[in-house]
Amino acid sequence: MPVLVNGSPAAHISVHDRGFLYGDGVFETMRHAGSRIPLWSYHRSRLESALARLGIACDIAVIESDIASLLSQESGHGVIRLVVTRGESKSGYAPSIDAVPHRVLETRPLPAMFGDITVRVCDWRLPVQPALAGIKHLNRLDQVMARREWDDATIADGLMLDVTGAVIEGTMSNLFLRKGDEWLTPDLSRCGVAGVMRSWVMNEGLPALGCDVDVRDVTLTQLLHADEVFLCNSVRGVMPVTRLQSPGKTWAVSDQVRALQSSVGKLWHA
Amino acid sequence: MPVLVNGSPAAHISVHDRGFLYGDGVFETMRHAGSRIPLWSYHRSRLESALARLGIACDIAVIESDIASLLSQESGHGVIRLVVTRGESKSGYAPSIDAVPHRVLETRPLPAMFGDITVRVCDWRLPVQPALAGIKHLNRLDQVMARREWDDATIADGLMLDVTGAVIEGTMSNLFLRKGDEWLTPDLSRCGVAGVMRSWVMNEGLPALGCDVDVRDVTLTQLLHADEVFLCNSVRGVMPVTRLQSPGKTWAVSDQVRALQSSVGKLWHA
Repeated sequence: MPVLVNGSPAAHISVHDRGFLYGDGVFETMRHAGSRIPLWSYHRSRLESALARLGIACDIAVIESDIASLLSQESGHGVIRLVVTRGESKSGYAPSIDAVPHRVLETRPLPAMFGDITVRVCDWRLPVQPALAGIKHLNRLDQVMARREWDDATIADGLMLDVTGAVIEGTMSNLFLRKGDEWLTPDLSRCGVAGVMRSWVMNEGLPALGCDVDVRDVTLTQLLHADEVFLCNSVRGVMPVTRLQSPGKTWAVSDQVRALQSSVGKLWHA
Repeated sequence: MPVLVNGSPAAHISVHDRGFLYGDGVFETMRHAGSRIPLWSYHRSRLESALARLGIACDIAVIESDIASLLSQESGHGVIRLVVTRGESKSGYAPSIDAVPHRVLETRPLPAMFGDITVRVCDWRLPVQPALAGIKHLNRLDQVMARREWDDATIADGLMLDVTGAVIEGTMSNLFLRKGDEWLTPDLSRCGVAGVMRSWVMNEGLPALGCDVDVRDVTLTQLLHADEVFLCNSVRGVMPVTRLQSPGKTWAVSDQVRALQSSVGKLWHA
């Protein structure tokens, strides 16, 4: 698959890239439909916010030009992954004043889509770090270690709690739950990745079906007592959770969530 | 400066290396004296423990062979930096069963040595993550962000507190403090990097001078009331802190710490 490093075809980066040395950068994993990225305005907004919070000055117009170049020949659906790092390091944690951010962009085939899914609860806990919460940065050892806990292809994702015991997200997805008529999604002000599909569901998807979404802390007990649960991300859309493995629990899928899945499908296939 | 990637001269790594994608790996920054690494047994022990905790199977004998090869022509003192990652990713957080770890090894000139130092207290807090505490892994955004807080060359390092308010370490060093006859260093069971020089000082350096070292939580108030403070790391050795900037505080340096610095010098120049 094609890869662009700083706008040119390449498959390697410098061993002095600060993404490699320190995880000093951010990424976006996006779904494209031909040359179009349906949720680009959300990805762009999150990317700009993350770069600003980390103090990395990378012109989004240059990224948009890279994307246009990489996707110009694409006709099908696939994944496009962008990494932006702070550039090269001379030595040590202090960034060089003249460091120029690095951009790595590549396309990948769409992974297998899931139907309704089974999930588990991971043992690995997320640390509390409000200063980095929400950002899709390159420090992802917690997700890697949580994902190593299972090797059962029937389990689509693992739910992660933080060190305080709050339920935060999946290793590669965000969580929504319904109790009666009320939808809620965990507060991500202490940790977690604020997913682009999560934003779309909150701002457009559920409101279009007449539902507001509340953002607050969620306990494992609340999750077990929920009437319905789904995970979502920008590549696989809305994934209804029909089974939680250990503690065992099953859920049905409402017409509302089927309608939400259909809205995501329209977004992709517009 | 020479770089070995998986044992061969190279300056780049794959954009699919999991160190680059997720910070999924560990590193060691070591001081060498010609072809000798004075604290190699400590580095080796920490490396083995970190790789085991992350589940990365990399043969240390191969690393020792890389190091011998890279240092064979070296006569002066310098720094040798090792990165071991989990290897390449096919896609997503789940490691491939057949992933082969990557090794990146390079030498750098010794940085300028410090005399007695001035330090500051960073605003950026370390998250609490017992499962990764002590490991010198590649997820170092917290140190990068803390190090960005100052640009004053007279400040040698910044002290970092964790989100609970405990004083943990410097951005690139460990902390020791003395109250009366008692030496102590912060407990690193919730966060922080267990430095190799810290281990040497605890196990050999201070005991040889008749001092034991206590490991426990340290508050900022305790630090401000300490009789003496030093930072240490394996490249720059023992760095007496004579001034804390904001809140302002000065300390004198005891004969004991001068003797400890002299012990480190003997270790390097044996």
